[in-house]
Amino acid sequence: MVKQERAARTRETLIRSAAEIFGREGFSRASLTAICARAGVSAGALHFHFESKAALADVVEAEALTRMVAVIRAEFPATTSHVQLLVDATHRLADALRSDVVLRTGFSLGSEPSHPAGADLRDHWRCWVEQELGQAEAKGELRPDVAARDVVTAVVAATVGLEVLGVRDARWLSEATVSRVWRLLLPSVAPSALLAQLEAGGTRPR
Amino acid sequence: MVKQERAARTRETLIRSAAEIFGREGFSRASLTAICARAGVSAGALHFHFESKAALADVVEAEALTRMVAVIRAEFPATTSHVQLLVDATHRLADALRSDVVLRTGFSLGSEPSHPAGADLRDHWRCWVEQELGQAEAKGELRPDVAARDVVTAVVAATVGLEVLGVRDARWLSEATVSRVWRLLLPSVAPSALLAQLEAGGTRPR
Repeated sequence: MVKQERAARTRETLIRSAAEIFGREGFSRASLTAICARAGVSAGALHFHFESKAALADVVEAEALTRMVAVIRAEFPATTSHVQLLVDATHRLADALRSDVVLRTGFSLGSEPSHPAGADLRDHWRCWVEQELGQAEAKGELRPDVAARDVVTAVVAATVGLEVLGVRDARWLSEATVSRVWRLLLPSVAPSALLAQLEAGGTRPR
Repeated sequence: MVKQERAARTRETLIRSAAEIFGREGFSRASLTAICARAGVSAGALHFHFESKAALADVVEAEALTRMVAVIRAEFPATTSHVQLLVDATHRLADALRSDVVLRTGFSLGSEPSHPAGADLRDHWRCWVEQELGQAEAKGELRPDVAARDVVTAVVAATVGLEVLGVRDARWLSEATVSRVWRLLLPSVAPSALLAQLEAGGTRPR
C-alpha cells in the first residue's frame, strides 16, 4: 500500500472511531485516547490528521453531511413525483441512520450543547425538504387546500423526531415506522389522483 | 423565613440553576461550581441537598416529569373529545417547553449519551399519547380506516421533533408551528363529523 493510500485509510478509520466514541460518550466526555485505541492508531497519527477534538467533530459532521446528500439525492426517473421522491429519501435516510454511525453521530452532534454548532445536519435536511416540496407545489403535486409550508413543518418535525428517538431504539427508524408516518401524512398532502400512485413504503428496493 | 422553608427554596433554586447549566453546557461539561455560582449558594449547601452531579440531573428529570404531567393533564369538560384533548396538550406542552428551562432540560437530558438514562420524558410522553389515542379509538373518534398505532407514531415523532428543533430555535415551539402540524394530521386522524369540530390551534386560552 502506498503511503498516501495508507494515510487516507487511517483518516477514514479515525473518523469512524471518533463517530463511535462521540456517539457513545458524548462530545465532551469522549477522549482522544479512547478514539486512538478504537482506531488502533497512535496519538501522533491522530494529531497528524486532526489538530483537536473539535476539529475531529467538525470533520465527522462534514462527512455525515456528504453522506446525507449522497443518500437523499439518488437518481430517479423523470416520471417520479417530487412527493414520492421525498418519501423514498426519508426511507433511505432512515436506513442509513440505522447502519451508518458517522451519519447518526453527525446528526446527534447537532444537539450537543458542548459542541459548537457545526454543519447542523437537521437544518440542511430542512432546506432539502423545503426545496423538494417547493418543486412539488410548483408542479401541482400538493393538494390545493394545503400550504407547502405546513407540509415542510410536519415532515421535518416527524423525521427529526424519528432520528432522535432512533438513537435509543432503532425501531423508530424501521421501514414499518417510516411507512406509518407517511400513510398518515400523504392523504393531507397529495391530491387524490396522485395519492393513488404514491407508495408510503417507498418505491425502490433498498 | 423558617429554616425548612429556606431549605426548600434553596433546593428549588439549585434545580433551576442546574437545568440552566446542563442546558447550556451539557451534562458532562457542566460543573457543580458553575451551578452553585448561578444559584448563589455555597458548595456545602449544594452537597447538603444533592450528593452528586448525577443525582442533581436525576432530580431535574424527575421534576420535569412532574411538570410535564401537570401540563398535559389539565381538567377538561367531559364533552371534549380525546383527540382535541391531545391537540390542546401538545400546545400547552410546547408553551411550557419555551418558558420552563427545567422541563426543557429534562427532555434534552434524555438524549445526552453521558447522562445515564433517567426518567426519559420522551418515553413518558409516548405512553400518554398512546393512552389518549387508545381511548379516542375506543370512543370512535378515529377514522375507521386509520390504525391508532399509526397515529401514535406520527404524533410522537412530530412532537419530539418539535421539542428537539425548539432547543436551537424556539419558533419550532410556537403556536403557529404546532397548529400547522395538526392542520396536516387531523384530516387523516378524525372522521369528518368530528373533524369539523376540532381546533388545530387548541381550544383553551393559554
